[in-house]
Amino acid sequence: MSDKLSPLAPAISPALPDIAGVTCRIARARYKDWDRCDLTFVKLAAGTSVAGVLTQSKCPSPEVEYCREALKQGKARALIVNAGNANAFTGARGMAAVQKILSLTSAHLGCAEDEIFVSSTGVIGVPLPQDKAEAGLKAVFEADPCGWEDAAATIMTTDTFPKMATTSAIVGGQTVHLSGIIKGSGMIAPDMATMLGYIFTDATVEAGFLREMLSAATAESFNCITVDSDTSTSDTVLAFATGQNPSPALTSFDDDGADAFQAALADLCMQMAHLVVRDGEGASKFIEIAVTGADSDDSAKRIALSIANSPLVKTAIAGEDANWGRVVMAVGKAGEPADRDRLAIGFGGVTVARDGLVVPDYDEAPVAAHLKGSEIDIAVDIGLGSGRATVWTCDLTHGYIDINADYRS
Amino acid sequence: MSDKLSPLAPAISPALPDIAGVTCRIARARYKDWDRCDLTFVKLAAGTSVAGVLTQSKCPSPEVEYCREALKQGKARALIVNAGNANAFTGARGMAAVQKILSLTSAHLGCAEDEIFVSSTGVIGVPLPQDKAEAGLKAVFEADPCGWEDAAATIMTTDTFPKMATTSAIVGGQTVHLSGIIKGSGMIAPDMATMLGYIFTDATVEAGFLREMLSAATAESFNCITVDSDTSTSDTVLAFATGQNPSPALTSFDDDGADAFQAALADLCMQMAHLVVRDGEGASKFIEIAVTGADSDDSAKRIALSIANSPLVKTAIAGEDANWGRVVMAVGKAGEPADRDRLAIGFGGVTVARDGLVVPDYDEAPVAAHLKGSEIDIAVDIGLGSGRATVWTCDLTHGYIDINADYRS
Repeated sequence: MSDKLSPLAPAISPALPDIAGVTCRIARARYKDWDRCDLTFVKLAAGTSVAGVLTQSKCPSPEVEYCREALKQGKARALIVNAGNANAFTGARGMAAVQKILSLTSAHLGCAEDEIFVSSTGVIGVPLPQDKAEAGLKAVFEADPCGWEDAAATIMTTDTFPKMATTSAIVGGQTVHLSGIIKGSGMIAPDMATMLGYIFTDATVEAGFLREMLSAATAESFNCITVDSDTSTSDTVLAFATGQNPSPALTSFDDDGADAFQAALADLCMQMAHLVVRDGEGASKFIEIAVTGADSDDSAKRIALSIANSPLVKTAIAGEDANWGRVVMAVGKAGEPADRDRLAIGFGGVTVARDGLVVPDYDEAPVAAHLKGSEIDIAVDIGLGSGRATVWTCDLTHGYIDINADYRS
Repeated sequence: MSDKLSPLAPAISPALPDIAGVTCRIARARYKDWDRCDLTFVKLAAGTSVAGVLTQSKCPSPEVEYCREALKQGKARALIVNAGNANAFTGARGMAAVQKILSLTSAHLGCAEDEIFVSSTGVIGVPLPQDKAEAGLKAVFEADPCGWEDAAATIMTTDTFPKMATTSAIVGGQTVHLSGIIKGSGMIAPDMATMLGYIFTDATVEAGFLREMLSAATAESFNCITVDSDTSTSDTVLAFATGQNPSPALTSFDDDGADAFQAALADLCMQMAHLVVRDGEGASKFIEIAVTGADSDDSAKRIALSIANSPLVKTAIAGEDANWGRVVMAVGKAGEPADRDRLAIGFGGVTVARDGLVVPDYDEAPVAAHLKGSEIDIAVDIGLGSGRATVWTCDLTHGYIDINADYRS
């Protein structure tokens, strides 16, 4: 946890309703030399279905490898999250620590091991100490239930604020609730900034369909944010549906309410993803990059991410400089179909360049005023087709260097 | 030009020999509000052959588009380089400025327009002023010949030192000379940090074969360096062979001396590429990343560039932190075949992690001492095959943010 709150943190946190079938507890495992809760135990009602999306890293943590396997059966009874130690790149000893957690938790709950989901985030290369995990689990099993904010704070590492979101949908005339907690100060970082997101709903959703909806929502949210283009060994998003709401089960988009649920899930994922960007390491500006007119939606997304990941674009925004030349550069380097002479670029709704040229009588004043703010919009029209995508990032500041050049020392 | 010399600048610049058939002149076109030479005119003897590699950007400058066409005929009589204005994203007016330069220079030399090569580097989006180009050309045509160092200084923009390299080869019993000048403070930046490199040799080399050799040399040098992963709209490397040396003509690798010439060209390109990294914006450490044991050489290069472009790796080195966890992360995100449990990572010749684990009794002291230096070696063995690649980069420091967040303001 950083002492300094991100300037982009929301002024107020939402009040999350209880989700029937979900109980959170926290405890101190002291995975690091600190005096804070760092172990989260979420108990889930029997019958909870689960779906997940996991890092594409070729060097994932044992937790990620385990979850990938466990997700295949689609049921969940518990989630355990360790903060302070990523347990990544720890070989057999890392997997043994996961196994210890599984056996203790399955014994406590009387459930199958593969109904327990485990994540760890923090320092890489140090096996998760089994003795601390064991003592922590004993404490957390006995702990009183806690609220969402405590759970959201306990999964934090370099985050500067706990991140929570909630929404609802009408399914079969019943209001179902969706709430999520997430941590991450970027997509980034094996050390402490892994993105871990957990979504809980009382709706009844068949696991395969939950996976389908989660994948679609992720493509437009978590996969459209970037802080520094780095990908953690441990990135994880899990969605749990407890089925405790009397609404009818959702098994496909043919079901009444499925579209509403999908829309709510997409909204929740977007809220959560934006919170991660708002806590991007060193961030001072929240940047939305909308690309239109590309050859395809995929092409638009690659162009948008090329802009969002460009250190030169990100430092220009930090410097409050409407440097559209750097945007041209980032479009050009994306390798996607683009024609310099059809390109249009705008900041804050003001078109700066069009048809390969700065606009006649370009007035920088309204653009400069927009750049002074903390919410920056960059619009790029490629002028070729109808492909579109929107991604979100933050600026690149001295704060990022401070945090990451001095992290271990 | 920056006031502050890069701490990685070479202590002494090499003395470049004259290359028969090459004459440099410089003048003040005053493309910016400055009092320095910013226009370079290199006259080349009749019969000079030329080859080039140009930016892959989909939004290239008119100069790049023009050079791509002109290179097809393979002969050159002149090179014109403008510093201070990139003339990129300037539409028809930008192309008209190039045309003006071509017509004035071809009239002066009495040669075909497509034997004249033109580059521009500097601010993007402002058409190169034709009146300044015309006055500058008139002055430069009348100027006295100058030395290599003056030419190397005149093509600079944000560079902190002029960059020159030289070597030689024996071809048919004759010593042929190869010299190069280059500018760039990164691969980077449409504004002022475009990489422009020019190679001159008195050897006689058929244009198609020169292109073949230049492409091979580029793959191992210019395409193996990165400062911030950004690609300029104007990146250009041109090689000119004047044929003024009595050595026999080189037309294929079957010719005596062709291998020696290729080796010399590769050496020259490597020297030049390293100079660019040494002037990387804000750089305080020169980093060599050697990847071995990958599935293929291409795979090794992609992994090496993933490490070299990772902001987290680059900030760790800036912080003198042997943070091998971030190297694991960067290997994992490259998307190339890798097996966490076979990975080995070393710094400065000391193996830190092996077989998916930190080495037993890891002694950080020699590694920490290596990280304090200004030349950092990172070695990664993937443990799968025999693919290998080496790339070079610099660290990511507050200096980079200073330069790029404040550039236009």
